[in-house]
Amino acid sequence: MSELRRDPVLGRWVIISSERGDRPSDFIAAKPLPKTGFCPFCPGNEDKTPPEIDAVRDSCTEPNKPGWRVRVVSNKYPALSIEGDLNKRARGIYDIMNGIGAHEVFIETPDHDKTISTLEPQNMEQLMWMYRERMIDLENDERFKYILIFRNAGQSAGASLAHPHSQLIATPTVPKRITEELNGAQEYFNFKDRCVFCDMIDEERDYQRRVISENDRFISFAPFASRFPFEMWLVPKHHDPNFADLEDSDISALAQCFQKSLKYLDKALDFPPYNYIIHTIPVNTSRQYTYHWHIEIIPRLTNIAGFEWGTGFYINPVPPEQAVEILRSANGDSQ
Amino acid sequence: MSELRRDPVLGRWVIISSERGDRPSDFIAAKPLPKTGFCPFCPGNEDKTPPEIDAVRDSCTEPNKPGWRVRVVSNKYPALSIEGDLNKRARGIYDIMNGIGAHEVFIETPDHDKTISTLEPQNMEQLMWMYRERMIDLENDERFKYILIFRNAGQSAGASLAHPHSQLIATPTVPKRITEELNGAQEYFNFKDRCVFCDMIDEERDYQRRVISENDRFISFAPFASRFPFEMWLVPKHHDPNFADLEDSDISALAQCFQKSLKYLDKALDFPPYNYIIHTIPVNTSRQYTYHWHIEIIPRLTNIAGFEWGTGFYINPVPPEQAVEILRSANGDSQ
Repeated sequence: MSELRRDPVLGRWVIISSERGDRPSDFIAAKPLPKTGFCPFCPGNEDKTPPEIDAVRDSCTEPNKPGWRVRVVSNKYPALSIEGDLNKRARGIYDIMNGIGAHEVFIETPDHDKTISTLEPQNMEQLMWMYRERMIDLENDERFKYILIFRNAGQSAGASLAHPHSQLIATPTVPKRITEELNGAQEYFNFKDRCVFCDMIDEERDYQRRVISENDRFISFAPFASRFPFEMWLVPKHHDPNFADLEDSDISALAQCFQKSLKYLDKALDFPPYNYIIHTIPVNTSRQYTYHWHIEIIPRLTNIAGFEWGTGFYINPVPPEQAVEILRSANGDSQ
Repeated sequence: MSELRRDPVLGRWVIISSERGDRPSDFIAAKPLPKTGFCPFCPGNEDKTPPEIDAVRDSCTEPNKPGWRVRVVSNKYPALSIEGDLNKRARGIYDIMNGIGAHEVFIETPDHDKTISTLEPQNMEQLMWMYRERMIDLENDERFKYILIFRNAGQSAGASLAHPHSQLIATPTVPKRITEELNGAQEYFNFKDRCVFCDMIDEERDYQRRVISENDRFISFAPFASRFPFEMWLVPKHHDPNFADLEDSDISALAQCFQKSLKYLDKALDFPPYNYIIHTIPVNTSRQYTYHWHIEIIPRLTNIAGFEWGTGFYINPVPPEQAVEILRSANGDSQ
């Protein structure tokens, strides 16, 4: 079983996984994505994954058989294990607990060659719906404090299989970055009596030059202090701390805004590697209503150098206003 | 001039640099390191860099001519500019200041083909001495709050020239990660009345299985909660918050411990890309004596995926105890 170890200076928890290589060379190079050959996520190969946890299916089809639109399974090589207890303890001066958690995979479409920006709109809605359902279900497990949904698109963004998929990891501690965001939003609220994300939405709608996509319910923009070239945030216009509270009636607006943002990116930069991450409030702990859920999309265009690692202080060579200009002009949008 | 922009949620400052590309494709791929051809850092090409700020030189040689052992020049494409004032101001709801700072390059050796682990020991000492001298000098500029020294080794660690070099960036704000470390060390001190780094040194010396190198004055080890495979920290055994207070008499011990650690890494993993970063206290602000300076060495073996970006919560597939076993056995060290 993997371990969770706490950095004694920063309080950051690290998963030390028990997956092991035998030789130093096993750690050196990322394996290239297999382009052809057998794919365990394609229809017909359902028995090559762990059993189905949930799925959106055509009527009258059986679990673990073809006929699904979106399929959720456990990760075959999970970073955290679902069985067991945390057994929080000391090791010398350090703090440690068992690597308990959930690690699931969303197989986003039966079609091996799609990506988010080219999914059928209905399929994208089914995926958003499934994200919400898995969050709601896992919140029932009181060992978990956070449910993280993310997507690694492309090998240099960390993907190890080409078939379109995203992932969920439920963790027994609140990740450090999330705690910082919660604290930041609370401090802003204490000072201004307003939500910082709501203020950002107003500012971006006024300024317009960083806006990528907007509909009745959602807006996406390149954040003012973008860490990375072409970074995008997608934010609900109505204040809501919790992704899992997403209304059925908002799902199609979310899918539309999300897909349009990624279409702009894929068109302008020819399907670059990227990550996206849903940022939402922790579960099974006091709810913080000053937070505002959102999705951060991070294209992986530049190497992160020592300066960034050492400081959390990023150098971004593309001002967000210029990034949006490029996105718009590549997409024939003369807004 | 570049800008410093503050993330309104996290308080993190980002450098938005004014270096611009013209087309989207300019942002997509890192350029490969030139292997051959002209090198502006090689002896004889001193006029191809900005003028020398400082150097360790053979006697009777002139600035900006050959005869140097370590040479410091301004970065030709600086992320921050030395001239001007900060002009802190609002932009809409956001905070911004001018990109004022220093950005210098340490050309570590005249020999294009060396790396830290293969430098002559005397050359390594000259480099450590020069790191200290530049810190002491730049502290006199009251606009600066932090002086960061780091090295990007190898293209995937962010190096853009092959000739051995490291860099210094002086910033007008204290980087977020450093503030967090200062706070973490202070909290630990408040609770235990001891330095967390001093405690770690004792624990690692007792446990031995994570120790990589140790001499009278310094120790290097794989930290208990390593974020990355083969991560190493090098720490002075005597409590000291400030790298710039390094005694002359400690320089050779530092150089020896540092080189041995990197030799182990280069031997075991065949000269992998890595970053190292000197972590020390801020300047021109109240000094925090509960901090303990150290150097973090981060091999760049794995891709950082969405999970890590979203959370600051890392998955490390190589337990530090196993990493040290591999380092030792590759170096014939049966400790």
